[in-house]
Amino acid sequence: MIGKVYLVGAGPGAPDLITLRGAELLKRAGIVFYDALVHPETLAFAPQAKLVAVGKRCSRISTDQRFINRNLVEAAAKYAVVVRLKGGDPMLFGRAQEEIEALAAAGVGCEVVPGVTSALAASAEIGVSRTRRGASRSVTFATPRVGEGEDTSDWAPSVASADTAVLYMAAGQAAEIARVLEEQGMPAATPVMIVENASLPNARQIGTTLRGLRESVDLQVGGPALLFFGEVYRERARVLMAAALLEHAAADELPQKQALPR
Amino acid sequence: MIGKVYLVGAGPGAPDLITLRGAELLKRAGIVFYDALVHPETLAFAPQAKLVAVGKRCSRISTDQRFINRNLVEAAAKYAVVVRLKGGDPMLFGRAQEEIEALAAAGVGCEVVPGVTSALAASAEIGVSRTRRGASRSVTFATPRVGEGEDTSDWAPSVASADTAVLYMAAGQAAEIARVLEEQGMPAATPVMIVENASLPNARQIGTTLRGLRESVDLQVGGPALLFFGEVYRERARVLMAAALLEHAAADELPQKQALPR
Repeated sequence: MIGKVYLVGAGPGAPDLITLRGAELLKRAGIVFYDALVHPETLAFAPQAKLVAVGKRCSRISTDQRFINRNLVEAAAKYAVVVRLKGGDPMLFGRAQEEIEALAAAGVGCEVVPGVTSALAASAEIGVSRTRRGASRSVTFATPRVGEGEDTSDWAPSVASADTAVLYMAAGQAAEIARVLEEQGMPAATPVMIVENASLPNARQIGTTLRGLRESVDLQVGGPALLFFGEVYRERARVLMAAALLEHAAADELPQKQALPR
Repeated sequence: MIGKVYLVGAGPGAPDLITLRGAELLKRAGIVFYDALVHPETLAFAPQAKLVAVGKRCSRISTDQRFINRNLVEAAAKYAVVVRLKGGDPMLFGRAQEEIEALAAAGVGCEVVPGVTSALAASAEIGVSRTRRGASRSVTFATPRVGEGEDTSDWAPSVASADTAVLYMAAGQAAEIARVLEEQGMPAATPVMIVENASLPNARQIGTTLRGLRESVDLQVGGPALLFFGEVYRERARVLMAAALLEHAAADELPQKQALPR
């Protein structure tokens, strides 16, 4: 038997944000290899399948990738439908290319099923369109952490020159990112939105500015977070900053560390 | 009765690329306002709903937008669930902002349900990841047609400086776009992929380069098309160019107009 491998985007987190095609493939799958961030209820769409966690740690990428590739090829010899389930969309920061090439080299059929990338879900939650007629006609999606041991500012010019920008996997190095973007000419007053756990019940939004981001080393962000930059967020960021200040005042305490800037 | 309006992303075209949440809302909707590009089978998810086409012509945007806004507000007084169905994702080139603001001003509740934007589906079809570890860490999505009567090169710097770029609604002005990008310093040999009707049975891919795009005024593209730029597409574009040349040779004819460059 030669099965087929489907690289399926699970969407941003909430189980009902997978596509109908993705859910249908999970129903038919004999085996599912899933990433660390996939929701347990998404896996419940495949009650009959063997479930294999292939969550990766940042420090062990290449070893694990070879292991995943080998497993996908071997699974296609046993199962008609093999699903490789990835958070968000497989082709955007999903490291799909290595798997596609390994499957092609082994003569295994492969199809990609797109998914809702987390920036789309986060924008839906913020309630502000990333593009706006007359005000914003370009959006850059970037990550300062793709690749290791490389110059970390390659990504910055396209981010600084776009009307709106979204950074993935960036919250952990927010201060450094803000410094690089200011060097690229992004104004210090540029509105910034931080969205954590987009589409999940514990989703959280923080409003700030590029200056605030640089000064706020400790963003107290735990889950996967996205950073949004752009004038379109000015009003929303301002409302959130005011609400956060009110909350501090109501609790009759001043924050130890000023997480939200003036 | 005060209903709620859901701005739902229908996805890139294929009916099974809508999200589970989107399909569920269509099932519950009393009325659905849909864009011109939404697939008839997507509308079939809402057999009980009143279906209202609100397809827009480029030249009558503002009039129609006010008409749509008023209709959404009025529908919320009659129906518990009002769906505004948009192609792709509502928050990316979907002109959602005007509707969100009109609903807020009228005190009508509004929720955005994200969708798979067509660039994600087109990438799945091309089979090449837009981002690649070590090679591509930034992607720009832009449209040279958002806004009317404005300078049309604002969008170019973020496109030229990104590792990978996608242009929406751009095929009709391909030669002009290529000229602007060359002025911005994008090399003439940059690989370009044109994807028409992404995710639909009549989907088509054309491989070329920035130079080829500038010289090929007549792209013979009919349906909605996306333009992809970036080194990640070099091999795929080359394969498609070779296949197109072979096809011409097999038909024993030389093309009247050289649509595909050397």
